[in-house]
Amino acid sequence: MTLKLYYAPGACSFVPHAMLEIAGATFEPLAIKLHKNEQNSPEYLALNARGQVPVLVDGGEAITQLMALVAYIDARFPEAGFVPRDALARARFVEALAWMNNTVHPTFTHIFMPHKFTDDAAAQQAIKTQALAQYRQRLGELQALVQRAHAAGQDWLGGVHCGPLDAYALTLLRWGTIAGINPEDTPELWAHAQRTAQVPGVARAMAREKLQLSLYQPSA
Amino acid sequence: MTLKLYYAPGACSFVPHAMLEIAGATFEPLAIKLHKNEQNSPEYLALNARGQVPVLVDGGEAITQLMALVAYIDARFPEAGFVPRDALARARFVEALAWMNNTVHPTFTHIFMPHKFTDDAAAQQAIKTQALAQYRQRLGELQALVQRAHAAGQDWLGGVHCGPLDAYALTLLRWGTIAGINPEDTPELWAHAQRTAQVPGVARAMAREKLQLSLYQPSA
Repeated sequence: MTLKLYYAPGACSFVPHAMLEIAGATFEPLAIKLHKNEQNSPEYLALNARGQVPVLVDGGEAITQLMALVAYIDARFPEAGFVPRDALARARFVEALAWMNNTVHPTFTHIFMPHKFTDDAAAQQAIKTQALAQYRQRLGELQALVQRAHAAGQDWLGGVHCGPLDAYALTLLRWGTIAGINPEDTPELWAHAQRTAQVPGVARAMAREKLQLSLYQPSA
Repeated sequence: MTLKLYYAPGACSFVPHAMLEIAGATFEPLAIKLHKNEQNSPEYLALNARGQVPVLVDGGEAITQLMALVAYIDARFPEAGFVPRDALARARFVEALAWMNNTVHPTFTHIFMPHKFTDDAAAQQAIKTQALAQYRQRLGELQALVQRAHAAGQDWLGGVHCGPLDAYALTLLRWGTIAGINPEDTPELWAHAQRTAQVPGVARAMAREKLQLSLYQPSA
């Protein structure tokens, strides 16, 4: 049974997308165009009532939530070594992934989709301004994770293999550039994202999603 | 080496607290009083620079992030059967836990601590109002999870054992009562939380934290 991955170009679904490519998986990539509101079509809502990407379909099962896809793809492709097996290393991996998923990612949502939190236009602007300042700080914390990995002699955030933490870090940095944050402000994170983008599986996922690593444009 | 759990009464740290009690673990419970700002003391910030609970200390290692504590406690106490071993069941477990952690929990943060998102008082009120409506919906979704587990012949959200999903559901329902939501509005979730509260390990954690299951007060 072929795996199917529903993704939206540039969204956090890039993380399982890159994992499947790195693992050399056979899968059917299915793009959901958020600007055409395809995530709210009756067909898609039947797969995921919350109208979010990613969704991974394996046989009759549709799995949602990035963290669940990471666990499932790790279990399906154990030879890729995505998640450490040792209890402490595994906890550190989950600690970093959960933080990206429950803190950094939602901070970007406050910048990009403040209407999710209030209908009031002035309040939306206030939310956006504060979230942008917080997002800069969080990219600094993300860079500290990269520095800590390097100091421990690890090339990648999860250890010896490029994996979901690196793909998520690349995505979060890239989102920052969309919000007008210069990637050079976090040079070690930027270098790490550039190195991640060169890993063949990651490069294939980026090509399919037609992603540029940085969309930063210095203001004139 | 004795495990140490830093928790704040009533916070999401209740989830690992209940797990340790259910597992019959030997551990030192250490209360952090948020109203006294103890989470921002230099000693605590040395353990967790983000000033959040929970923190689990094992030997020289301090682990943060609820999801990482769940993974670590599961690995330390495998006989408790907290996390399913089968790949699909495990993914479903992570799917539910991640959603509680990255969606339901932050929605409550918008009700309870809107100042985290803006300094503007009017904007804070707008955020709070919208988040309260969303939180009601999400308790409805949480109840649907309980219904689905029961329909599948499962007593508990994670399968045959009372575990982190049940303790988190209890916590999220309890937070709703603090926000003025009548627990009777989601009767099956309310019944599930009451049953969870009677599990001896859960009851011990509630007693230590001096928690009432419902703080709902009908408006006069």
